[in-house]
Amino acid sequence: MTQLEMACKGKLSPQMEQAAEHENIPAENLRLLIERGVAVLPVNVKTPSLVRDFRPLAIGEGLLTKVNANIGTSRDFCDVDYELEKLSTALAAGTDSVMDLSTSGDIGEIRRKIRGNCPVMLGTVPIYEAVCRLMEEGREIGDMTPEELFAIIEGHGEEGVDFITVHCGVTQKSIENIGDRLTGVVSRGGAFLIEWMRANKKDNPLFTRFDILLDIARKYDMTLSLGDGLRPGSIADATDIPQIAELSVLGDLVKRSRSAGVQVMVEGPGHIPLHQVEANVVLEKRICDGAPFYVLGPLVTDVAPGYDHITSAIGGALAAWAGADFLCYVTPAEHLGLPLVEDVHIGVVSARIAGHAADIARGIPAADQWDAKMSSARYNFDWKAQAELAIDMDIIHKVRERCPLEDEQTCSMCSRLCAMKVARGKGK
Amino acid sequence: MTQLEMACKGKLSPQMEQAAEHENIPAENLRLLIERGVAVLPVNVKTPSLVRDFRPLAIGEGLLTKVNANIGTSRDFCDVDYELEKLSTALAAGTDSVMDLSTSGDIGEIRRKIRGNCPVMLGTVPIYEAVCRLMEEGREIGDMTPEELFAIIEGHGEEGVDFITVHCGVTQKSIENIGDRLTGVVSRGGAFLIEWMRANKKDNPLFTRFDILLDIARKYDMTLSLGDGLRPGSIADATDIPQIAELSVLGDLVKRSRSAGVQVMVEGPGHIPLHQVEANVVLEKRICDGAPFYVLGPLVTDVAPGYDHITSAIGGALAAWAGADFLCYVTPAEHLGLPLVEDVHIGVVSARIAGHAADIARGIPAADQWDAKMSSARYNFDWKAQAELAIDMDIIHKVRERCPLEDEQTCSMCSRLCAMKVARGKGK
Repeated sequence: MTQLEMACKGKLSPQMEQAAEHENIPAENLRLLIERGVAVLPVNVKTPSLVRDFRPLAIGEGLLTKVNANIGTSRDFCDVDYELEKLSTALAAGTDSVMDLSTSGDIGEIRRKIRGNCPVMLGTVPIYEAVCRLMEEGREIGDMTPEELFAIIEGHGEEGVDFITVHCGVTQKSIENIGDRLTGVVSRGGAFLIEWMRANKKDNPLFTRFDILLDIARKYDMTLSLGDGLRPGSIADATDIPQIAELSVLGDLVKRSRSAGVQVMVEGPGHIPLHQVEANVVLEKRICDGAPFYVLGPLVTDVAPGYDHITSAIGGALAAWAGADFLCYVTPAEHLGLPLVEDVHIGVVSARIAGHAADIARGIPAADQWDAKMSSARYNFDWKAQAELAIDMDIIHKVRERCPLEDEQTCSMCSRLCAMKVARGKGK
Repeated sequence: MTQLEMACKGKLSPQMEQAAEHENIPAENLRLLIERGVAVLPVNVKTPSLVRDFRPLAIGEGLLTKVNANIGTSRDFCDVDYELEKLSTALAAGTDSVMDLSTSGDIGEIRRKIRGNCPVMLGTVPIYEAVCRLMEEGREIGDMTPEELFAIIEGHGEEGVDFITVHCGVTQKSIENIGDRLTGVVSRGGAFLIEWMRANKKDNPLFTRFDILLDIARKYDMTLSLGDGLRPGSIADATDIPQIAELSVLGDLVKRSRSAGVQVMVEGPGHIPLHQVEANVVLEKRICDGAPFYVLGPLVTDVAPGYDHITSAIGGALAAWAGADFLCYVTPAEHLGLPLVEDVHIGVVSARIAGHAADIARGIPAADQWDAKMSSARYNFDWKAQAELAIDMDIIHKVRERCPLEDEQTCSMCSRLCAMKVARGKGK
């Protein structure tokens, strides 16, 4: 049985218990959220046997905002050990989830290595592997048979992938107006499917044969993450007709997934200006019946390559406050290249900042207690406690040792003119 | 005559013409905003003779969001040449304003050097110099005479300081409830005045003798930036009684300033959770009759030392969208030490991202055209144009040369699987 089927039968799974403990809520509350489909608990039935100390987490309504880190090889930059280093970096930085988006090398082998070393939920985009295999064989994207694609998806199920991105909403109908766009299609998976549809003059097999996908997903309890293949790649394309057309398709597929006992969440944009972020969340929640919303960014401006961890922290905070449940990190390397280990680190930290800021704003119980503890340590000049409480535990020491300090309690910003001391009559 | 007095008489100054050109609005429109006091144009009457190619900018309602960079020495870290390097770094990164917050060394000499090399508006906090002089003379903060403080303020006027932070709202009444706070007082200027009031058992001379301040400010057309000495230093203290009590005092002083022909803006917090940011802007605009709002951050969480350029970019974007006019940058060094040159760079870029994201959301005409140009260059794989349009012009090249590229057009993220190529039938 999937977590959804168990929830619908009133049964509490061990994973529900663990995930509820993480949220500090009764397991029964979490079960109700999963039953309604407004929360998912992505854990492949194979995962517990493949990973030591796997930490199940739920994603959805009223729960702590979760953060995902994308790793994986590309053709220009293919080093498996380096990807494993990114994995451990992302985990150390506190990611709640990892997606392996490898598109080069022995993708199966890379995924198995990542899975074995990844105690948090793991996601993939199976069509990447399908297309890469075609390339290796000298075949075109249009040559892919639906059977090949489903076989790969089944393989991901066998190997303990907890959730998969499937761009089922990229259909002949939803792409009708993409010619009006400034930046066309910026989703790799979406682009592959469009190329396939063009070559075969047929509709997207992930849409036309959605029931096959549901069968596989149910078998392994792989959560479907319905991809936004038509997400806007620029502010100019935000919240446009193709994006909404795709979302409408996804809303229908959410209902079909739930009826089949398959856990499902929905992916969202992308490049969205600040004033459209909330509307995008409201729209997804309305059209997709409250399904957990997994956003990539959103990036609130296009002009800051090299700083898209910041543009997306702004958008992510706002989105999560409005109800988005799961933030995919964006690193400083976005739009420029494959991220390095240091990009992974700052990407996770930035997304966690956005998520936590939103958790405070949403009134998630005790979220702001973390801040109160930190501020109390700050007010008491307890640098050890500050380092332990900081979202990045190493950084305080690094910055403080940059110059000799006159007073060990204060910092080089104000030295003995520290306001917190002066105002208490302790400074001079 | 001050810019405000000229505006009230229907006169267009050369600075209004230049500032309006920067905004791409008719000078008459800007004059009307200045007349109403909802915009300021900080330019000391001495400035044009002291600085070559000074670029006057206005701050206020409906104008582009402006960004300030704080530089200046501290006792632990006092190197004038290094501060001048920070100045040129901040200017190169595109700051609209600089504040010299030096608290060590020959503060007058440092300020004059900065002024001579600073073609954008320059602000200071005169009480820092007053207190540092006392320290040098072995005197206590309480020993400062109001006359000494006003003499220093007059000196800043003589030397072409365009705006000064004066913590006039820190009064015996407004500090009544600071004992209830988690983090007390975190403004240096505020703390100095509280110490002075305690030692002298008298109220704040910047409040009791506000008319003297107005006389000096009018003489030089130094814009008053009414400081938020009681800004919250933690999420827990946000939007509390002392903060609002101080703001109420400032609202009254705004009216007195305008009546005296003195340009005035109001400083704001600080540490504010996401869901209270808009309320803080609304409150300032209401209580202070639409006076331009100059915010420090706001920081939307306390737990991310080392990343407060990000926590403040989130808060700053939201604040500016809600109507804040002027964002003081926060660097990664905040709460930990004096910023280095690289912190200054990323601080300015982060604040500019926040301001620009807000300008798009506020519908500032043509703000999103920058994004459209960038995205068009991106879609056309025009890396030269992207570098020229990027908020940080050097970064694209830096990231792209990190690994050899199979295809000069694409990047190492997707290589030949680039969605923008594949979806157009150009990839493989």
